[in-house]
Amino acid sequence: MIQIPRGTQDILPGESYKWQVIEEKLREIAANYNYREIRTPVFEATELFVRGVGGSTDIVNKEMYTFEDKGGRSLTLRPEGTAPVVRSYIENKMQHDVNQPVKVFYKEPMFRYERKQKGRYRQFVQFGIEAIGVEDPLIDVEVLSMLMHIYQSFGLKNLKLYINSIGDHQSRKEYNDALVSHFEPRIDEFCADCQSRIDTNPMRILDCKKDRDHELIKTAPVIYNFLNEESKAYFETVKEKLTDIGIEYEVDYNLVRGLDYYTHTAFELMSDAEGFGAITTLCGGGRYNGLLELLDGPHETGIGFALSIERLLMALEAEGIELEQPDGIKLYICTMDDNSFDKAGTLLHELRTKGISADMDYKRRKLKAQMKDADRKRAEHVIVLGEDEINSGEVELKSMQDGESRTMNIDELKNYLED
Amino acid sequence: MIQIPRGTQDILPGESYKWQVIEEKLREIAANYNYREIRTPVFEATELFVRGVGGSTDIVNKEMYTFEDKGGRSLTLRPEGTAPVVRSYIENKMQHDVNQPVKVFYKEPMFRYERKQKGRYRQFVQFGIEAIGVEDPLIDVEVLSMLMHIYQSFGLKNLKLYINSIGDHQSRKEYNDALVSHFEPRIDEFCADCQSRIDTNPMRILDCKKDRDHELIKTAPVIYNFLNEESKAYFETVKEKLTDIGIEYEVDYNLVRGLDYYTHTAFELMSDAEGFGAITTLCGGGRYNGLLELLDGPHETGIGFALSIERLLMALEAEGIELEQPDGIKLYICTMDDNSFDKAGTLLHELRTKGISADMDYKRRKLKAQMKDADRKRAEHVIVLGEDEINSGEVELKSMQDGESRTMNIDELKNYLED
Repeated sequence: MIQIPRGTQDILPGESYKWQVIEEKLREIAANYNYREIRTPVFEATELFVRGVGGSTDIVNKEMYTFEDKGGRSLTLRPEGTAPVVRSYIENKMQHDVNQPVKVFYKEPMFRYERKQKGRYRQFVQFGIEAIGVEDPLIDVEVLSMLMHIYQSFGLKNLKLYINSIGDHQSRKEYNDALVSHFEPRIDEFCADCQSRIDTNPMRILDCKKDRDHELIKTAPVIYNFLNEESKAYFETVKEKLTDIGIEYEVDYNLVRGLDYYTHTAFELMSDAEGFGAITTLCGGGRYNGLLELLDGPHETGIGFALSIERLLMALEAEGIELEQPDGIKLYICTMDDNSFDKAGTLLHELRTKGISADMDYKRRKLKAQMKDADRKRAEHVIVLGEDEINSGEVELKSMQDGESRTMNIDELKNYLED
Repeated sequence: MIQIPRGTQDILPGESYKWQVIEEKLREIAANYNYREIRTPVFEATELFVRGVGGSTDIVNKEMYTFEDKGGRSLTLRPEGTAPVVRSYIENKMQHDVNQPVKVFYKEPMFRYERKQKGRYRQFVQFGIEAIGVEDPLIDVEVLSMLMHIYQSFGLKNLKLYINSIGDHQSRKEYNDALVSHFEPRIDEFCADCQSRIDTNPMRILDCKKDRDHELIKTAPVIYNFLNEESKAYFETVKEKLTDIGIEYEVDYNLVRGLDYYTHTAFELMSDAEGFGAITTLCGGGRYNGLLELLDGPHETGIGFALSIERLLMALEAEGIELEQPDGIKLYICTMDDNSFDKAGTLLHELRTKGISADMDYKRRKLKAQMKDADRKRAEHVIVLGEDEINSGEVELKSMQDGESRTMNIDELKNYLED
């Protein structure tokens, strides 16, 4: 028997409504904030991610699904959504779009070849937004407002927002130098990854999982002290406005991003719900003022976030929040014999093309089994179609909610159910 | 500059509403017919398609994106949707599901490495349905009813439905033998593909594009004459019921499917709209009673169809049908200075978290440019926030439809727009 590829999942008919409910809500919130959808291909030129995500990252080094197409081009299944959106922005010259900033959202499958563990899939779905073309603390606040609104609108409570600023290019350069001076004399006490990070990405030593208890991590210089005046002012305004609109946050100076193009605001939303497991990051994001130029684009700045829908579902589960199932069908038609079975097919066609959801038992089971089936399909109403009903043209419409019945003509039935 | 992979497309923010409108409609119709969504991974074990689509098909021989993952498994980007759904059905033992038949729909990207031409993309989106677990002419009719309803509900008129029956296993075996006897003596007059098809798939000679004008094609035996009694009766019932419910069709005896697991009903929907170009097939489908067993599954039968959303969009364009754009935003806030810019940010947050779509100009342009922007964003209402408004707490809400204004308190505004 051929099995599903390791690390991936099917979303089965009984579960898919959860995804639909979440995605519908996300689309609605995106519209409220005036973000419009963009869709990019599942694969991109490998170079896009090597440059746009960074050759020193785990994603690029260990986790990408890379292959050659029949034309000999190296392609990679999208491991994240920002680089493709930025590629599309540049290629389509969106800096000249009349709508500025360009505010887009995406909802796409992402692919990372990771070790299998709870809540991690090799194919997962990310919803993300990007606002490109404006550098202003207020747009950073808009992005954070939207992020919090998404999670709160599902009723989640155990949320913790961490923010930080990594300043502008100048600030982070000075900070990097300070980190190198701090760690270099004793770098041999650190793991192999950190020993290479000191050359490529000193900031990433700060969030190394292996070395997190080393005393030098605790005594490391703090980015805030290296922010120049403009960067400090930017950060202060973001924090002030967050407080103004009632969004709670905590500053985490160790929340840094390893790549050169990240600037100013960085953030992470964590769940502190019990039973959530070890992976508690729900969503991350930040400002990336250098990314467009790095990909040979115009001098424009951007900010965005990405969240995994799988992780959101886990958070809902951890807090015992259930998503409402959509309505069942409006009408279930029970049939008594070959003739009524036949007639039911015609009636179904008429009802459905009028926009009324309806079904019957194609397995021609006994009436009792059909009633059970109607119940399972959460039918609002049931009719039984037999010889009498076909001869008289009248049926008894039974409500499955209150058990009440009313007799009506079959034509009346169509209008009645349409309302 | 890094470019989008050849043969793929971005769906840009100004166009994506078309996809959303179509997909929303498809979800709605699927619900009316009581089909529920299933989602399977973008890639599957390569063997699934070799067996489930067929080693003699162009898809498998020429068009698949196949690669090895880091664990050495051969994976293939899904070129079609039926084999993955059947794989999931078998793996999840859906024959034991209480809901029978299992009726599912999918809406997923598919991947075929094809020559670039109008209306063909290497990544395209298919919407498809499968009904597995019942063999009855009425479920075939349900599937065809749904198919026609989809296209008609968009207002498409130039539609032509072709149907055929390829009978049961016994009927098609006899027919295949007759085809071999018919073509074999002069097979050297046919193309290389057909010369190999006579061994692997004689029925596929009938729809060869190169040899379509050969006299032997025109004089070939007709499948209908090889249908046994049961197969004929099945086909007659399908045709009768289609006529009953007012679905027009034409029988096309050359509409055959090359693979052994296809049985009984086969169909294709074509567009005969002018200006549609050479590719006129909108949708195809049929019954596949042998597929589940071929994939080591239970003895269950199925039927389904798949349509490409790109092709549907082309058909709409060819008939001059425009999809309605969703509403613009409810409110656009114009700002006059730094202070009102700041206050607008707070007001936006309040409105949006109440579910009201609203936006402002983050680029701090002049009032005239902001009014233009409001118009472009199709705002229903506009307010101008300045010193006076902030001091008095009163704003003038201007309707962009009729130009009328009304003065109200800012708190009133929130309630007014919420209704």
